Amino acid sequence: MGYLIDNLQYANWSEKVFRQMREGGVDAVHVTITYHETFREMVLQLEAWNRRFEQFPDLIMRGTTAADVAKAQATGRTAIFFGFQNPSPIEDDIGLIEIVHQLGVRFMQLTYNNQSLLATGCYENYDAGLTRFGKQAIAEMNRVGLVVDMSHSGDRSTLEAIDTSSRPVAITHANPNWWHPALRNFDDDVVKPLVARGGMMGFSVYPHHLKDGSACTLESFCEMVAEAASRYGAENLGIGTDLCQDQPDSIVEWMRVGRWSKAMDYGEGSADAPGFPPMPSWFGDNRDFGNIRAGLDAVGMSAAEIDGIMGDNWFRFYDKNFGPDQS
Amino acid sequence: MGYLIDNLQYANWSEKVFRQMREGGVDAVHVTITYHETFREMVLQLEAWNRRFEQFPDLIMRGTTAADVAKAQATGRTAIFFGFQNPSPIEDDIGLIEIVHQLGVRFMQLTYNNQSLLATGCYENYDAGLTRFGKQAIAEMNRVGLVVDMSHSGDRSTLEAIDTSSRPVAITHANPNWWHPALRNFDDDVVKPLVARGGMMGFSVYPHHLKDGSACTLESFCEMVAEAASRYGAENLGIGTDLCQDQPDSIVEWMRVGRWSKAMDYGEGSADAPGFPPMPSWFGDNRDFGNIRAGLDAVGMSAAEIDGIMGDNWFRFYDKNFGPDQS
Repeated sequence: MGYLIDNLQYANWSEKVFRQMREGGVDAVHVTITYHETFREMVLQLEAWNRRFEQFPDLIMRGTTAADVAKAQATGRTAIFFGFQNPSPIEDDIGLIEIVHQLGVRFMQLTYNNQSLLATGCYENYDAGLTRFGKQAIAEMNRVGLVVDMSHSGDRSTLEAIDTSSRPVAITHANPNWWHPALRNFDDDVVKPLVARGGMMGFSVYPHHLKDGSACTLESFCEMVAEAASRYGAENLGIGTDLCQDQPDSIVEWMRVGRWSKAMDYGEGSADAPGFPPMPSWFGDNRDFGNIRAGLDAVGMSAAEIDGIMGDNWFRFYDKNFGPDQS
Repeated sequence: MGYLIDNLQYANWSEKVFRQMREGGVDAVHVTITYHETFREMVLQLEAWNRRFEQFPDLIMRGTTAADVAKAQATGRTAIFFGFQNPSPIEDDIGLIEIVHQLGVRFMQLTYNNQSLLATGCYENYDAGLTRFGKQAIAEMNRVGLVVDMSHSGDRSTLEAIDTSSRPVAITHANPNWWHPALRNFDDDVVKPLVARGGMMGFSVYPHHLKDGSACTLESFCEMVAEAASRYGAENLGIGTDLCQDQPDSIVEWMRVGRWSKAMDYGEGSADAPGFPPMPSWFGDNRDFGNIRAGLDAVGMSAAEIDGIMGDNWFRFYDKNFGPDQS
């Protein structure tokens, strides 16, 4: 076994959650720090994380490089990496891309469901592809080593990002449409070019992305991963649970509506089920990664494939993509 | 000869100035990036510097540690270190101290002439000493390794900062009052406790801080340095020229008036001489440090003392004070 990395969480952070990360042997987590925040609001989130690092130095540490994952494992801690689910923190200012990278941010989605200044989100009626600013932003992200994440983008924008970016693109948290059709999941004709250019896909266990939702079985999820490995190559796959542990429903409302609508938008939910859906029985928190590992073993994946999916593939991706291009 | 470090400049930055730094063999410069700017405005200054580092990679590099000074010297470049002359970029938010340190800022004045949220400036009628926020801010600056700079502060605030700070304090650019009395210069009863706690004083060549102003002779300046060495110890002294090369007079107006007054305030100038004063003949730009070195030699200082003052003392100070306290 190598590294255990979850490449997407947005929990209501607490000592309890950090202790569960340690119980679960999680070496690194990519945490979302913003959805709709401005630059200054994003800095407040960084301040809150600095406070947590100061408060819980034995449990967590700030991560900015792959070497930090190794350091975290060696010192019995979890390395926390920062990401944005929307480019709102860079506002209309390309210079902020290097600034946020200097502040430790390593992933940035070009969109969150809606049209952004950079690209089109997966909930818009028409995806017009990358904007003028979007193309410039990708070049700058490539230069400094801020990973382009297309998890919440439309297909055309995603394909153009894959094509435009000189460095690998990530879909940090989503699943294939052939297993569970959803606006947030992806077709082969997007994932195949993604992985062909060195990109990574992280599988989500957020119920709206799962076949049968909260009732999804571990076996079904793991069979999907095994099939995805045969289609896309196991070395291009990882985990991005989208765990939103202990969050009140007001948070999912913020994620969906931000400040852009006075009317309610239920996103993947509905008026009847507006809140966070219950997690599947086999993944409730950071202590449950062993279930996924066992499930992948049960569907016949090799130990090397499983090690890669559980973290070593993200580790390699971090190592290549979190700084200036060395190639 | 060791390192050549100028611990305070605020030039109108250009390729010309950077080439003069190289001609002058300057290994590092602490540059002021803000006077009255808010946090977001300060970030715009960092963005401008990032652009310069990208544009002139053969001349300058971003410096955050003493090791960067050595790296700059080894690669024939000048390392640029950032500082604030006012705490305005941290606004009312103690969490911004670690954030600005993460962004590379290494010096912060607690005041610029006026009362700030932290302490009292040297132009106020009454110096009430450190504020409640000021004491908290110093503790946080000590924790992360952001140097307390009292160059533009009142005596009581400066003495309280020296006393309160667990780590050495700097007066980056000023001179002794016994040589040239000025609100911006300092008495022995401030400098002596400063150096007794490991603090450093950098000598300014800004004419308003010099005996006889722009007509000050090199010999007079160097005799002052030699006398200061006998009073304070040569190892606690350095250079902080306060060079404001190529700046239009609108800049000195911004420095003095910022946004805090509708009426003109001439600061160290006057209605008859409102602009930047002409520099002394022996120090016009970064190519003239050799004159100071020769002048210090001419007044009988030892080679070791001169090496220390020209940069090695700041190098040692950087090495001890730019990160978490290791002692």
